[in-house]
Amino acid sequence: MTARCITLLTDFGTADGYVGEVKGVLATLAPGAVIVDISHDVRPQDIDGARLAVARYWRRFPPGTVHLVVVDPGVGSGRAAIAVASGDRLLVGPDNGVLSPALFAVDAQVVALPVPPNAAPTFHGRDVFAPVAAQLANGVPLHELGDAWHSAIRRRTPEPTKRQDGAVQGEVITIDRFGNAVTNLYARADGWLEVASTMLPVVRTYAEVETGTRVGVVGSTGLLEVAVRNGNASHDLHLSRGAMVVWHPSRRSS
Amino acid sequence: MTARCITLLTDFGTADGYVGEVKGVLATLAPGAVIVDISHDVRPQDIDGARLAVARYWRRFPPGTVHLVVVDPGVGSGRAAIAVASGDRLLVGPDNGVLSPALFAVDAQVVALPVPPNAAPTFHGRDVFAPVAAQLANGVPLHELGDAWHSAIRRRTPEPTKRQDGAVQGEVITIDRFGNAVTNLYARADGWLEVASTMLPVVRTYAEVETGTRVGVVGSTGLLEVAVRNGNASHDLHLSRGAMVVWHPSRRSS
Amino acid sequence: MTARCITLLTDFGTADGYVGEVKGVLATLAPGAVIVDISHDVRPQDIDGARLAVARYWRRFPPGTVHLVVVDPGVGSGRAAIAVASGDRLLVGPDNGVLSPALFAVDAQVVALPVPPNAAPTFHGRDVFAPVAAQLANGVPLHELGDAWHSAIRRRTPEPTKRQDGAVQGEVITIDRFGNAVTNLYARADGWLEVASTMLPVVRTYAEVETGTRVGVVGSTGLLEVAVRNGNASHDLHLSRGAMVVWHPSRRSS
Repeated sequence: MTARCITLLTDFGTADGYVGEVKGVLATLAPGAVIVDISHDVRPQDIDGARLAVARYWRRFPPGTVHLVVVDPGVGSGRAAIAVASGDRLLVGPDNGVLSPALFAVDAQVVALPVPPNAAPTFHGRDVFAPVAAQLANGVPLHELGDAWHSAIRRRTPEPTKRQDGAVQGEVITIDRFGNAVTNLYARADGWLEVASTMLPVVRTYAEVETGTRVGVVGSTGLLEVAVRNGNASHDLHLSRGAMVVWHPSRRSS
Repeated sequence: MTARCITLLTDFGTADGYVGEVKGVLATLAPGAVIVDISHDVRPQDIDGARLAVARYWRRFPPGTVHLVVVDPGVGSGRAAIAVASGDRLLVGPDNGVLSPALFAVDAQVVALPVPPNAAPTFHGRDVFAPVAAQLANGVPLHELGDAWHSAIRRRTPEPTKRQDGAVQGEVITIDRFGNAVTNLYARADGWLEVASTMLPVVRTYAEVETGTRVGVVGSTGLLEVAVRNGNASHDLHLSRGAMVVWHPSRRSS
Repeated sequence: MTARCITLLTDFGTADGYVGEVKGVLATLAPGAVIVDISHDVRPQDIDGARLAVARYWRRFPPGTVHLVVVDPGVGSGRAAIAVASGDRLLVGPDNGVLSPALFAVDAQVVALPVPPNAAPTFHGRDVFAPVAAQLANGVPLHELGDAWHSAIRRRTPEPTKRQDGAVQGEVITIDRFGNAVTNLYARADGWLEVASTMLPVVRTYAEVETGTRVGVVGSTGLLEVAVRNGNASHDLHLSRGAMVVWHPSRRSS
């Protein structure tokens, strides 16, 4: 049998040693599991950024994988701590929406986790979530870890809206490291994208345009992205999360 | 038997490939060990930052773990290279204080490591420390790796001082990624914290205050921290390492 | 038999979850392999930076290791995707020069990889390179993965030039995290280094000079570096890639 993976996504950074503490707990309690770093560079307390990352990777890992996600501005408050079984994967984290991608599956089961009395009120990653992730990796069934929890917070990317003229209005949902602005528009490799008062052609790949050209392009999750070939669209067009984008079936002055 | 962990803490960054070289040496010489990244983002040559991180994680890992720590501004100088056995863990690094948390244990044993003649004078991480970490992970006893070394440098966090009026004066020892200012004051969840000419209440958890409120809070290592709920105390209060903080048993004008 | 390593070098950053997707593919298709992060912090689309990092680490890992390198500004264009067997290691990445260090070996074999029809045109790391890296780690022979490819792009560090007066003229090829400026001059621990209109002595180790002194020093790959002991030479001397450096056998006014 292959060892189970426990993946880690946090906003801790690594330099302070907090991630080291979490890994020490995992290595101690689940010595047979494989620890896989996803990222510790999520912007501090950026729940939506973490949620979008989780959406990308959670189902790419083998069945049985445990995904530990700790972006937790509400630590120590009344927010629940949860564990989720969904689509043959297991997830652990705060009940603030970061685990949403797994909560929308029809088979999703959720339990609320008890907080041990000696847990540090500022560090549930180490004292609540990591021990539970270790138990799940060791094969402890979900229902033994807490009571069923039916009110888990589900955050979702806003839906784009169809307009009467055939255009579809959406928004930028995240900016990636390359400066590409990912939108909530379902990708189709035609038409035009209106953004920041300019009209950009939608192409299938960067290869269709010259270096420095601004385009709409089909992204790797099936959403349209605003990109500059070998450049940074976010800087060039002053785009940030929430910026309006409109897809048009044909070119028109904006 | 479970594979031994070798953890890595450096100030190398990762992009240059230096960490890759160290991992290649470890994977070659200790193929059965599990390599665990703690961080490579320690501020360049920040011995105290590394020391505080080590204090957090070194005992969280299973017995037998080898902690490799390379923050080494004195590389190539006369500073010793050491390996330490302490509290059932093993540590390797330069003799500059980064390994101090393990040196204070009563059972700590230290040896000075020979520097192979072909070691690069600027990269003991690759040529001195990694090979020794691999040998320790392979079960080679400490005393076979060098001669006993009794003058290892011990750095410690300064002790706070009690004042006649019942207050306790301390300082900020580090700023974490969230902007929390960790102090050297032992935590107690009452009283007031005087910092940057303001008086902040000490609370047990962020949950007791509104977003944006400045507080003293019990940190996850048992020390008081200056924090802003869902904000950045270091920026707000212009705090950096060494800033004075005073704990008062009751509120008073500062 | 020891598990094979698959190392990862990308310019993806980690926060967006792209690296998570790649790791999920690897964990699914090559569950017995060990995933080793080299870096995800290569400057976006910095082919030469990645190439220099690869040169440092690729031969440090055990025979059989698979090195996955994805710095790929030409993704989706006509550039080939390649896999390489060289010096008992295997490498996978775009045909843009990042794998050059392995291509210069006399035994290097290269194949061009087919792009699956459902591969995302913007993310060959996930859909082309990771599946091939997994197959190589599983022992699939190189020649089964594609047709021989004889026109792989080889990028190399420019050679220094000898001058009639005995001096050798070179350039800065990269700046590392410590601000050291690595040159293309073969190291010898004597003479003088002329850089930014100043003459610096060449020393064997930092230990020979005081903190803050600017020197030429023998770097850990056998090349001369411009360094400031416990300081940042790149900032002090305003050095960047391509800056001219000249080694002189004896001191002279510049």
